Amino acid sequence: MIGVFDSGLGGLTVVKEILNKLPQYKIVYFGDTARAPYGTKSAETVKRYAIENTKFLLEKGAKIIVVACHTASSVSIPYLKEKFPDIPFFEVVTPSFKKALKLTKNKKVGLIGTRTTVESGIYNRLFAEANPGIKLYANPAPLLVPLIEEGWLKKPETRRIVKKYLIPLKMRGIDTLILGCTHYPLIKKIIQEKAGKRIKLVDPSEEIAFEIKEYIEKNPDFAKNLQPDGEPEIFVSDITPNFEKIAQLFLGRKINLKKVNLE
Amino acid sequence: MIGVFDSGLGGLTVVKEILNKLPQYKIVYFGDTARAPYGTKSAETVKRYAIENTKFLLEKGAKIIVVACHTASSVSIPYLKEKFPDIPFFEVVTPSFKKALKLTKNKKVGLIGTRTTVESGIYNRLFAEANPGIKLYANPAPLLVPLIEEGWLKKPETRRIVKKYLIPLKMRGIDTLILGCTHYPLIKKIIQEKAGKRIKLVDPSEEIAFEIKEYIEKNPDFAKNLQPDGEPEIFVSDITPNFEKIAQLFLGRKINLKKVNLE
Repeated sequence: MIGVFDSGLGGLTVVKEILNKLPQYKIVYFGDTARAPYGTKSAETVKRYAIENTKFLLEKGAKIIVVACHTASSVSIPYLKEKFPDIPFFEVVTPSFKKALKLTKNKKVGLIGTRTTVESGIYNRLFAEANPGIKLYANPAPLLVPLIEEGWLKKPETRRIVKKYLIPLKMRGIDTLILGCTHYPLIKKIIQEKAGKRIKLVDPSEEIAFEIKEYIEKNPDFAKNLQPDGEPEIFVSDITPNFEKIAQLFLGRKINLKKVNLE
Repeated sequence: MIGVFDSGLGGLTVVKEILNKLPQYKIVYFGDTARAPYGTKSAETVKRYAIENTKFLLEKGAKIIVVACHTASSVSIPYLKEKFPDIPFFEVVTPSFKKALKLTKNKKVGLIGTRTTVESGIYNRLFAEANPGIKLYANPAPLLVPLIEEGWLKKPETRRIVKKYLIPLKMRGIDTLILGCTHYPLIKKIIQEKAGKRIKLVDPSEEIAFEIKEYIEKNPDFAKNLQPDGEPEIFVSDITPNFEKIAQLFLGRKINLKKVNLE
């Protein structure tokens, strides 16, 4: 099975893309809704949660792990690889970085994400290594997650706040913008509208699905380990009626959530 | 010691009021910042967290427990009393209810709070038992916590969103409004402005401090158990630079946070 985890339900945007591109494999998902969000928490705490979530998915039969959370991808990948050396890990940062590297013409790239993602400095390091000529301008956008989870996807308040977060990036003249959080694809239209037509958006959920597909095609022996087809199994650490609504919003269809206690 | 817990740092508004009214006793505080917020989580999960937090404070020497979180107060008090029958518990719901009962003239009371607090129906039950003639109009205001934690205390976006949450309550003609979350006192001025002069606000942090003072004065033997004076000890389950900033905002002065792991 393909194991996917996120702090909450935002990672279902990634599941949706994987289902589109790799419908022949079964997915097991874990959303840590009892401890969400991760984006306001310290790197140390997020690392601990990422290790617990990975253990759970491996116990459920996952053969590869997709970290469908920008915050966890930004701070926990080296620790996960050290702790689970035989498991292939996929994360949302590297494919987004590669796509932005390809897209930018004027070498000015913008990034919005949670505070922990932005403060991790991971994108700065990746761009600096690849091409020191590229300037990265990052702005934490911590209110977008709660606005999206409230379902305020088209409200004027959301538009105003998106605009506010983008102003400093637009002033820098960016031509590419990384949507550094798996929640953001849900308000991609507003972000595009407020960014303006000249700025190209990088959606991590699309990029990561491409990357997994490529890996599986290149490793046919590995693909045999993956359980074929079947409804994705969605586990969460907490259920509320609102979480069920959000899950549907992110996945684009109705789904049963199963509750588990990791602590 | 007086033990106080909250999902995060909002409960420090209650600590501030207790320090004002009972400066002679030592306070030990636990903010569950690694799992905050509680207001979006299920009653079952919040109950489990409340029991763990109480255990921690009792181990630290607390003799009374103050549940300085509206969500935990709304859903966990009966379970806490059953689990720890010898401990006096104070919570923010009952004193707010009593104050609103006293203040309302037209018998129309409003409530804003987190989704879990509003959906618990606890205020409806209390008012129905006390005076079935009183109408309670409640509106969940889930975006106020993230706005306050972002420090957007005076921003036009915060004003707009407060106004939006209050419109349905004002249309019902309420004359009293319960601030059903320990974060809200920080934007009391905006709430008063948007509610209008005719509506009286009930601030739970003031009310609970009065109630504890009264209890201690009526139980002088009990007061002997409380450790005298000293800097409050503030424990949290996660620390970030932003949490340190928020703690200072809520408590009104600089304070050292100590990290503990409850899981």
